[in-house]
Amino acid sequence: MLAPDDAFGLADPMSAAHQPFARRLAQMRPSTIREILKVTAQPEIISFAGGLPAPELFPVAQVKAAADTVLSQNGAAALQYGPSEGVPALREWIATEMGARGIRAVADDVLVTNGSQQVLDLVGKVFLDPGDVVLTENPTYLAAIQSFQTFEAKFVPVPTDADGLIPEALPELIKQHRPKLLYTIPNFQNPTGITLSAARRQALARIAAEHKLTIVEDDPYGKLRYRGADIPPIKHWDDAGCVLYASTFSKTIAPGLRLGWVVAPPEVFSRMLILKQASDLHTSSFDQRVAHAYLTANDQAAHLGKIRSAYGERFGILDEALRAAMPSDYHWTKPDGGMFLWVTGPAALDALQLLEKAIAQKVAFVPGRDFFPADGGRNHFRLNFSNSTPDRIREGVRRLAALCHG
Amino acid sequence: MLAPDDAFGLADPMSAAHQPFARRLAQMRPSTIREILKVTAQPEIISFAGGLPAPELFPVAQVKAAADTVLSQNGAAALQYGPSEGVPALREWIATEMGARGIRAVADDVLVTNGSQQVLDLVGKVFLDPGDVVLTENPTYLAAIQSFQTFEAKFVPVPTDADGLIPEALPELIKQHRPKLLYTIPNFQNPTGITLSAARRQALARIAAEHKLTIVEDDPYGKLRYRGADIPPIKHWDDAGCVLYASTFSKTIAPGLRLGWVVAPPEVFSRMLILKQASDLHTSSFDQRVAHAYLTANDQAAHLGKIRSAYGERFGILDEALRAAMPSDYHWTKPDGGMFLWVTGPAALDALQLLEKAIAQKVAFVPGRDFFPADGGRNHFRLNFSNSTPDRIREGVRRLAALCHG
Repeated sequence: MLAPDDAFGLADPMSAAHQPFARRLAQMRPSTIREILKVTAQPEIISFAGGLPAPELFPVAQVKAAADTVLSQNGAAALQYGPSEGVPALREWIATEMGARGIRAVADDVLVTNGSQQVLDLVGKVFLDPGDVVLTENPTYLAAIQSFQTFEAKFVPVPTDADGLIPEALPELIKQHRPKLLYTIPNFQNPTGITLSAARRQALARIAAEHKLTIVEDDPYGKLRYRGADIPPIKHWDDAGCVLYASTFSKTIAPGLRLGWVVAPPEVFSRMLILKQASDLHTSSFDQRVAHAYLTANDQAAHLGKIRSAYGERFGILDEALRAAMPSDYHWTKPDGGMFLWVTGPAALDALQLLEKAIAQKVAFVPGRDFFPADGGRNHFRLNFSNSTPDRIREGVRRLAALCHG
Repeated sequence: MLAPDDAFGLADPMSAAHQPFARRLAQMRPSTIREILKVTAQPEIISFAGGLPAPELFPVAQVKAAADTVLSQNGAAALQYGPSEGVPALREWIATEMGARGIRAVADDVLVTNGSQQVLDLVGKVFLDPGDVVLTENPTYLAAIQSFQTFEAKFVPVPTDADGLIPEALPELIKQHRPKLLYTIPNFQNPTGITLSAARRQALARIAAEHKLTIVEDDPYGKLRYRGADIPPIKHWDDAGCVLYASTFSKTIAPGLRLGWVVAPPEVFSRMLILKQASDLHTSSFDQRVAHAYLTANDQAAHLGKIRSAYGERFGILDEALRAAMPSDYHWTKPDGGMFLWVTGPAALDALQLLEKAIAQKVAFVPGRDFFPADGGRNHFRLNFSNSTPDRIREGVRRLAALCHG
């Protein structure tokens, strides 16, 4: 069931030998996570596997009111084709939000996308030729690996510690590999939950300017901090225009609307825009207008406060349950926000084998391997805490810990 | 204003010489249409330029009721992440609709996309390596050219006549160019309005099977026939699994929802699915569910009947106005459906120059050039008739014809 090479059906015998597929497909490493998520969709499974926000916190009634407003006041425009850049009012709102995050941006700098995942696709289209090197954290977001693999990128990991990427390692890596991009998730990283320190963000911006390196700063989780003080984004220190900043409404409103954005310097923006148009013309006019109506009619700070306190509570419950039950040779990160923590087991652990046993016990997680662009990760796994209730978290850890004790 | 090389800002001096853009960007030919559409957004311009459906026919009240139903009954699911394949109920609906169009398909064959434009992006990702040849009509849909250019495709035109592509020309072209794909719009083609005959569709399916050629059948306009009888799609005759069939709700519900789909054989489907996931995870859960609720609660045949009769009437008015006013050395197609007709002027006509004069007279169209993958099209232009009222059509033709008379 979890044989990795079958995960996408890529190992199927080709029923039509005449299909002349592109070279990039041979280089895309299949991922186990799709098959895992299918299994974990069964309600009796306690799943730490997905990356889903808590649906009970979605502002359903407010989105309904917003949809009603949009269709009552401006229905034809909401259902018509719109600009590839995005709906102007939403771009304005995002530019203001960027200011609140410490980034100078005007609406013209903002490109609205289908979630921040599409930013990665557009980044690949604008920057990557086959064989180009992308520097990443190791491990990193698995769908970023998949997206950049579409463009036949090579990945080179940057050394990290508990404060994230180590900037001092970059000049030598840049010299050796001449990377096109550095991809990083500075806040509550997926999968580790680690946050890049302020000093390192400044250092990264300086090194990027010095070496003319483009940084892709992916920030889906920044608004989900439940402990400590916000740190400005890398782009806050980006005087040279080397940083592309991506974020999303998936964790602050709802992922089903598929709304994200990127703030990019004009010479990058104009190119992303052409490729956005070629990719899908534009993002849903309806969803953009519903989001804008929702954002302007509701108290965002109050809503985010609810999400943060729920996630903080769930992290605390998960952490406590793990401390109470896991063997002493298992360690995990203690993120200050976001949705994930990262477990490191003993060297002998095979997290994929553990998962097969876990699924038999109706509990699931994501093994570490898929988050590593090259090899590694066998004795790691990721736990999500945003999408389970406290009781299910405790019961899930009980089942999981029993298996880890063997 | 219309200098073609400036249309995307690509000729701007690079303010950041360090931006190492991908090779594909050098090969993408800028298009004038973006700049034209900006100009024609001014309400005083009578525009035959865009490809917009008539917004006064959008089912706004019904979409509002559908959004209300979805958020009342199933709000959390509509706002949560969903499967990359698409929402199951909508895939089922589409599979049934495929049956009605003469295509055998089950829900598992249907991939939901962000409009059918995204199908082209996924087709490029699955099939195209740099230099691969795509056979097309000449002229063809300009955003298909842009999309395949993202993958550094080469275009080879197939000879056409008033019945569309000439199948007899294919074996020699296949032998000579070893194309990866044949891209065609069989119904009321964009930009010409031409429809491929039934006999030729059968012949294409046979030739594709014989030569193991993949056909991308793009059918956004098939439901917009206002004259004559429907012709089954090429895929109706596709026993060998060589045809990918793409369509959209943009012209039958509303384009702002950005909902399209592709029906593909399993070995292609599994690959498109990986690449859909890497591109943007999935299409808006909310829009998919709203569309499904709308489709199941309303009489589609009645709604389409209204659109067809309005477009048929507008075509008739445009055709009549042209006949009454245009010089005798201008000719145009008489499509049986869709949204466009195609004008051929005298050999000396420069449609780009005509457009500059036309905009000064507050009337706009799209010059032919951008629809030709290689050179050509100087004395052609495209007129859209779906997005103007009868009075504006008559007045627009009056202004345009005056310019054509010189």
